[in-house]
Amino acid sequence: MKKNIFYAQSGGVTPVINATAAGLIDAYNSNKNLFGKLYIGKNGIAGALNEELIDVNKEDPKELKKLIHTPGGAFGSCRIKLKDPVKNKKEFLRILNVFKNHNIGYFFYNGGGDSQDTTLKISNFCKDHGYNIICIGLPKTIDNDLPVTHNCPGFGSVAKYIAISTYEASLDVASMSNTSTKVFLLEVMGRHAGWLAASAGIIKTSQDSAPHLILLPEVSFNQERFLAKVKTTVKKYGYCVIVASEGIKNNKGEFVAASKSKDSFGHAHLGGVAPKLANMITEKLKIKVHWSVADYLQRAARHIASSVDVKQAYSIGKSAISHAKQGKNGIMLSIKSNSTKKFKWGISDVRLSNVANKEKKLPKSYISHDGFGITKSCKTYIENLVQGEDYPPYKNGIPDYAKLKHPLVKKRLKDF
Amino acid sequence: MKKNIFYAQSGGVTPVINATAAGLIDAYNSNKNLFGKLYIGKNGIAGALNEELIDVNKEDPKELKKLIHTPGGAFGSCRIKLKDPVKNKKEFLRILNVFKNHNIGYFFYNGGGDSQDTTLKISNFCKDHGYNIICIGLPKTIDNDLPVTHNCPGFGSVAKYIAISTYEASLDVASMSNTSTKVFLLEVMGRHAGWLAASAGIIKTSQDSAPHLILLPEVSFNQERFLAKVKTTVKKYGYCVIVASEGIKNNKGEFVAASKSKDSFGHAHLGGVAPKLANMITEKLKIKVHWSVADYLQRAARHIASSVDVKQAYSIGKSAISHAKQGKNGIMLSIKSNSTKKFKWGISDVRLSNVANKEKKLPKSYISHDGFGITKSCKTYIENLVQGEDYPPYKNGIPDYAKLKHPLVKKRLKDF
Repeated sequence: MKKNIFYAQSGGVTPVINATAAGLIDAYNSNKNLFGKLYIGKNGIAGALNEELIDVNKEDPKELKKLIHTPGGAFGSCRIKLKDPVKNKKEFLRILNVFKNHNIGYFFYNGGGDSQDTTLKISNFCKDHGYNIICIGLPKTIDNDLPVTHNCPGFGSVAKYIAISTYEASLDVASMSNTSTKVFLLEVMGRHAGWLAASAGIIKTSQDSAPHLILLPEVSFNQERFLAKVKTTVKKYGYCVIVASEGIKNNKGEFVAASKSKDSFGHAHLGGVAPKLANMITEKLKIKVHWSVADYLQRAARHIASSVDVKQAYSIGKSAISHAKQGKNGIMLSIKSNSTKKFKWGISDVRLSNVANKEKKLPKSYISHDGFGITKSCKTYIENLVQGEDYPPYKNGIPDYAKLKHPLVKKRLKDF
Repeated sequence: MKKNIFYAQSGGVTPVINATAAGLIDAYNSNKNLFGKLYIGKNGIAGALNEELIDVNKEDPKELKKLIHTPGGAFGSCRIKLKDPVKNKKEFLRILNVFKNHNIGYFFYNGGGDSQDTTLKISNFCKDHGYNIICIGLPKTIDNDLPVTHNCPGFGSVAKYIAISTYEASLDVASMSNTSTKVFLLEVMGRHAGWLAASAGIIKTSQDSAPHLILLPEVSFNQERFLAKVKTTVKKYGYCVIVASEGIKNNKGEFVAASKSKDSFGHAHLGGVAPKLANMITEKLKIKVHWSVADYLQRAARHIASSVDVKQAYSIGKSAISHAKQGKNGIMLSIKSNSTKKFKWGISDVRLSNVANKEKKLPKSYISHDGFGITKSCKTYIENLVQGEDYPPYKNGIPDYAKLKHPLVKKRLKDF
């Protein structure tokens, strides 16, 4: 009897994680003779724990066709840290039990660093318990912080969104700066690695053009140096555009966004590096600031996805099937690239054990000498990943995104 | 001797204000036999006060061609409230003097409510001083709050951006809500009128779909009702999407964003309705919230402009020339529309005296009974304005926006 596939989406979603699902579904449909059913976890690995397996064959094929251009996690994602399989086997035993009862022979887990670690643990756990299964990690993270792979699907599109948004807002503030707002500040994601903030740097064409300051988690934040740079920038060019990573820290390693202030009820304020820095500038320099927090807008902005990114995400999904056919186990698929001028990429694979618990930060050679910008090599790296516009189709002025129904496979086990 | 034209951009810019400039420039070039030179104020009316007149003929024609798809105010805008011409004539006399010395016979002022008031005052002042000039106001505001006109150029594109962004972020939070964030909150512009917040409502297709709450400045904010609605929404549908206008007020008429809290230096926090409401939800309901402040990103998002909006803005610029040819004075151009099912629009004009100091808020018939949503007629009104995608051309993954040089006409007067 042919083994079934279990695929799940994990962690913070991206504009293109569903493109990976689309690639997987297409490749599965072309290889149906080799596999059993394709199941997808409802809400990621929670779908395994709760025995909530979406039967993809029962979804409307017309809606499935839209997955390649739909943001979010169309099958539900999750933030679950499974308990250690040595100290507390309960969850791993449950997953194994669900896999056994649904004849799962292939586990594809689509996520970032933590999810790759989970894939490795499940792979090892199944092996230790004599259960034959092929476990393959599919990379996905807007943070671009997975090691070994050239880049991560998800990053290119968000980088493109941030670069374009920064460019557009910089034209806005430049036109207002003579008599009104002189500083625009954009907060972007990236708690530990500065790839996303760095991506704004690709629009900079000269000393005077935006962004004038990029604040990276890799560079310790110093209020005096920051304010001095803002002040001279406004003086020289009339306005100043700042892109700040949410994860910037001071020299004691404390997040700048962690506010000590309280509201009128005595509760600590929620974070937000942008209002914090904006306040700093207004108070100390008496300059009018506008600020924006991109938050989910950046992570979901499929309407301006990068073609390269969509293609990579789709290929990762497709390659899950080809690698499974080859019987490859305990691997994460990766993007490999040449280092020649014309950017080319392909799909490769790495041992999961080489991925887990490693974080790829911006290398020093990608950060400008003063710490407020990026170097030419960083610019080239990011530019390669934002090429091409992959617009979704529209209906009545709004993108036509997939609407799925999540038809579940009949349960065979008691509730967990 | 043929009279010259003076055009200026005023107030907060929009994704399509340069499309109006493009329409004007194209129509001017087709009617060069009837007019003298086309000058554009550097930084809006400040260009008249400072005698900084950009000579459009000296700009690179290739860059001028890009104006139609370039956001921001390409010639600089301004926030200047001119002193009352009766109490303090100085500024108006200066403008008159600059107009006289540069043989200005046509004044086109591209702005919102305040700017239309300025246009009217300049028109009257010139008349009172025996100076023959045609003054025409060109509407522009993302807030859509100008009276008499069916809608305002600028609104449709920002409405489209807000609707799409809300849709995309709602897919994101829906996929995370099972184990993580359950509420997403987007703050949009609109200090007095709720048109922009309302525009998110066009993506709502059923009771359970986003946005679940729209907070309008037209509806007094009540914390208890708000929290109760958020709580039941999360309970019913698993997640909740909120779009809040920056201008919401409590029943005493105080802005909700006006924070009473202080930072560690004892300074009042900058506004931001989103962090305020997010804090409220986290504290009172113990639910994880993600929030975004769109700020300039919405106002500059030319990459996702509405076709209808771009066409309207361009037509307004073109019609400035045709109306000037007809000798029409003291008017604002407006959008007229039929009320039949298939949306059609055209350019008309209204007396400036009927525009000044009036603000068009969301009518009651456009607000849902519970105050947290929009009605079907509102949806239809907004949907008509977001139709079509007018993508800018791209170069190397980034939109190819105009870069102007602002070559100035030689000054003839002493500094002001």
